[in-house]
Amino acid sequence: MRLIRRLPLLQWARGYGGAVLGTDLLAAVIVTIMLIPQSLAYAMLANLPPEVGLYASILPLVAYAVFGTSRVLAVGPVAVVSLMTASAIGPVVQAGLADPLDAAVGLALLSGAMLVAAGIFRLGFLANFLSHPVMSGFITASGILIAAGQVRHLLGVGGGGATLPEILPSLWGALPQTNPWTLAIGAGALAFFHAARRWGKRGLMRAGLPGWLADMLARAAPILAIAATIALAKALELGGKGVALVGTIPQGLPRLALPGLSAELLVALAPAALLISVVGFVESVSVGQTLAARRRERIAPDQELIGLGAANIAAGISAGYPVTGGFARSVVNDDAGAQTPAAGIFTAIGIALAALFLTPLLADLPQAVLAATIILAVLSLVDFRAIRRVLDYSPRDFLAMAATILITLLVGVEPGISAGVVLSLVMQLYRSSRPHSAVVGQVPGTEHFRNIDRHRVLVWPEILSLRVDESLYFANSRFLEDRIAALVAEHPRVRHVVLMCPAVNDIDASALESLEEINRRLAESGVKLHLSEVKGPVMDRLHRSDFLRHLSGKVFLSQHEAICRLRRELGPDAAPEQEMGPGCRRDGVSGG
Amino acid sequence: MRLIRRLPLLQWARGYGGAVLGTDLLAAVIVTIMLIPQSLAYAMLANLPPEVGLYASILPLVAYAVFGTSRVLAVGPVAVVSLMTASAIGPVVQAGLADPLDAAVGLALLSGAMLVAAGIFRLGFLANFLSHPVMSGFITASGILIAAGQVRHLLGVGGGGATLPEILPSLWGALPQTNPWTLAIGAGALAFFHAARRWGKRGLMRAGLPGWLADMLARAAPILAIAATIALAKALELGGKGVALVGTIPQGLPRLALPGLSAELLVALAPAALLISVVGFVESVSVGQTLAARRRERIAPDQELIGLGAANIAAGISAGYPVTGGFARSVVNDDAGAQTPAAGIFTAIGIALAALFLTPLLADLPQAVLAATIILAVLSLVDFRAIRRVLDYSPRDFLAMAATILITLLVGVEPGISAGVVLSLVMQLYRSSRPHSAVVGQVPGTEHFRNIDRHRVLVWPEILSLRVDESLYFANSRFLEDRIAALVAEHPRVRHVVLMCPAVNDIDASALESLEEINRRLAESGVKLHLSEVKGPVMDRLHRSDFLRHLSGKVFLSQHEAICRLRRELGPDAAPEQEMGPGCRRDGVSGG
Repeated sequence: MRLIRRLPLLQWARGYGGAVLGTDLLAAVIVTIMLIPQSLAYAMLANLPPEVGLYASILPLVAYAVFGTSRVLAVGPVAVVSLMTASAIGPVVQAGLADPLDAAVGLALLSGAMLVAAGIFRLGFLANFLSHPVMSGFITASGILIAAGQVRHLLGVGGGGATLPEILPSLWGALPQTNPWTLAIGAGALAFFHAARRWGKRGLMRAGLPGWLADMLARAAPILAIAATIALAKALELGGKGVALVGTIPQGLPRLALPGLSAELLVALAPAALLISVVGFVESVSVGQTLAARRRERIAPDQELIGLGAANIAAGISAGYPVTGGFARSVVNDDAGAQTPAAGIFTAIGIALAALFLTPLLADLPQAVLAATIILAVLSLVDFRAIRRVLDYSPRDFLAMAATILITLLVGVEPGISAGVVLSLVMQLYRSSRPHSAVVGQVPGTEHFRNIDRHRVLVWPEILSLRVDESLYFANSRFLEDRIAALVAEHPRVRHVVLMCPAVNDIDASALESLEEINRRLAESGVKLHLSEVKGPVMDRLHRSDFLRHLSGKVFLSQHEAICRLRRELGPDAAPEQEMGPGCRRDGVSGG
Repeated sequence: MRLIRRLPLLQWARGYGGAVLGTDLLAAVIVTIMLIPQSLAYAMLANLPPEVGLYASILPLVAYAVFGTSRVLAVGPVAVVSLMTASAIGPVVQAGLADPLDAAVGLALLSGAMLVAAGIFRLGFLANFLSHPVMSGFITASGILIAAGQVRHLLGVGGGGATLPEILPSLWGALPQTNPWTLAIGAGALAFFHAARRWGKRGLMRAGLPGWLADMLARAAPILAIAATIALAKALELGGKGVALVGTIPQGLPRLALPGLSAELLVALAPAALLISVVGFVESVSVGQTLAARRRERIAPDQELIGLGAANIAAGISAGYPVTGGFARSVVNDDAGAQTPAAGIFTAIGIALAALFLTPLLADLPQAVLAATIILAVLSLVDFRAIRRVLDYSPRDFLAMAATILITLLVGVEPGISAGVVLSLVMQLYRSSRPHSAVVGQVPGTEHFRNIDRHRVLVWPEILSLRVDESLYFANSRFLEDRIAALVAEHPRVRHVVLMCPAVNDIDASALESLEEINRRLAESGVKLHLSEVKGPVMDRLHRSDFLRHLSGKVFLSQHEAICRLRRELGPDAAPEQEMGPGCRRDGVSGG
């Protein structure tokens, strides 16, 4: 059982064959056709030679098929991770720590090792640091950055840059050098892709083709465009006319090797590898869960970490670069009828065949066509409506999202996503630093106690009852100190403070210290601290500390009992009860 | 009113004089006597010339008296912040970015600016990041590091180091060079201080002195030791015998100036300044609150940020280094009868007089005496019992504390406290990533619904009811997706999922996305999602989003209503109810 959990392959591979083999094979053919141009294009986006994209689409797919839990997730190079890779290896290469290929491989290995470790130690929850608005803002900003960065390939000009303030002026300055041939091919490809996506399937069906064939042909549009533009480039000798071509791609399969990586290089790459792991994992799990739910299946997030980690390690030892599960290709895989991860293995075989036999044909492919592929793919990532939605729903979340987008666009991908994560945490800390609490009084004629700001209740001037509605822990424990200090300073007649804890599920060591501090301070000013309605497990825990021995007052089972006993203790000289409620004010008690 | 809140001086200075002036003056004399040796010693600990310690005890005290809200808090150089200063300026000086004096001044200015900004923008809650166990572990580890680092001054040997693995071997190696004169003076001073603290007051009272005089003399022990050892050093010409003396201290007051600081220096100092601000603020507020509570007064944490910030800026423009509120001296100030912050101003005048007239006398003071002062002061910071207490109470908090202590001792102060903060956050995220939730069923014959793992209840196989007991936000929203996916995958007969939300106070944008995702996924597999018992404010917020329009099911006021309506909808063919409870298992439903 444990082995099956760790090697999901053992489950689906038993008795594999027959009809399932057929549908898996068909899905693999369709995904392969889609993946060839994407692999080349995303490698270009990562500033790596095109063959690296192909290599990243072979062994990683096999590794995921062995270790992953989604039946239809298609892993490989994706746009956002490619952008993050480019941004991570740039400085490392510039500092002379490694050449781009070694840096990419190091990034994949590091990220793979982190993911596997997170899976083994069940640290998947760490991905929760990345909130939805931050992730969605980051993807939108990445899409914009990627599209802006590819425009120069459409124009056939030089330049570059990793942020909008770098990309845009460089583009503007290079505009006069636009190569008309490149622009014609790029714009043509873009228009063709757009038309094929929008009207292709419908048009072909209207022309009488059966649905499945129309669908497949529409999906093959990029491959058709590639074939056509290669032919065009050869016929017109576009290479001599200043059109940037892909150039010679080494023919054959990647050599398996563990590259020699310096410790210095790994340290320099570690922060980026961590961010890539988190973003890749969150993206992949979300795709995987969506597709699994359609079939009432499940994916196991901790095992997914191992699956993705294995895929990245496989990319690292086969001259690839970081990979993750892609949305579009997984949906295509699912739609095409993939039933098991074997479809991934067949896709890997398809890409391997392409690397073996198709690469010589690709030398004359204009880079502008790949740029058009990328631009069309990433524009679907840009989701302005999501921004609007978050703004309407939660201004605080919008702030984190807007910061992520702006910093990603203006400063870079790593600062952008880091700022988003930190801001979410800070705002969450702020939110939870003020636990909901209320000064309460007795509802006349009952044993119930309610917020004095909302209900007509009875209070006794010597007794202050405060109900806390959340667990107490380090983020909110100091607030409680402040709150009680303020209340007691406002009410000089108070001699007993009762903390009503019906909703306190936990008291951590910080909150315990705060309670001890509150108890000590109150005692020094002649006020006793009592607790009431403490839950069983919390009480058990308090017994493991000194707190109850030092507590100046008592622990009461109910608030009603507390009030009865304390009134008896105060004796006949005590001030009489007062009626309180919304609108009436007795020496400044405030419900907060 | 607002002005008084911002300038607390306006409140206490009105009608100041008379008896209050007298007690404030007396308190100032006592604190001044205590502060002179401490200022010199802590400056030595920060690897700064002794006069810097005096300067940090003049203007900052005046600034705090103007802006601070505690009536008795005594600010100035303290041990932990001095250690952090030494650790922060070391690398900067080594990198050639600044000389030690400029770096110290830069650190004070940066930290002051951060504190003031935090006060203005009400960011005091950020100090909550520093949990009690982490702070307490950090202080203990700092005390050990400081004491270990001062031993070499007691022995009169060279060496240094900022962590135990650096300090201890260096000490061991230098042991043979121990200077007997230095050791004799240092050990003598240590024994004398210890005896004075332990038996001084009692002994003097037994000798017939009145209590107040005995107390004052006991407190003056360090000053007596200083006078005696200066005389001894002069008489025996110890300087020529290899005993390290304080040396010439410039006579006079600090020059007020804004030093020219490079942006590069400020960037390099920023992380350390942030940590110093947080640690100083937490320490100071805790002292201030404790002392204020004794008098049923309050301090205002946000205004305290401004008070401490002003003190640090004052330190920065008067050639000082970072300061904060000290525990021991504030207690002495309070015990000696200080009534208003004017006592702080008088103390500043006292230290200024010392800087003007006493400094020539201090040149022959053996450094070993200052080291003895430091060691005695910091050993009271080391609190092993707190470690034991946290271990007994909360193993998770203990982990954060132990990591803080070990990393501080072995790697350094900044990594130590950062690791503690990060670990607390990660563990809190882990804790909150699994919100308390339970599958519920109906208690027979009532309208109540309870956890099926704890109570005998009725369930209907087509309806799954899940109660969530916490607010939903980014840290736990993905858990809900997993939980519901797992439950629905386990129960193929389920056609309705009801999410019971009586304890959900908030749903942030991440959790909303998750709910939308859950709704979409359930709908794709033919299951409807319903909500019940949603609180008013949460409902209002949901109305601001599309969620309710896309929701496949309904929102019910009560869980009872939900069950009645859904059973009617399922019609007569629905499976009959089943009785569930602890011990009995129906196709694997689990309460979790």
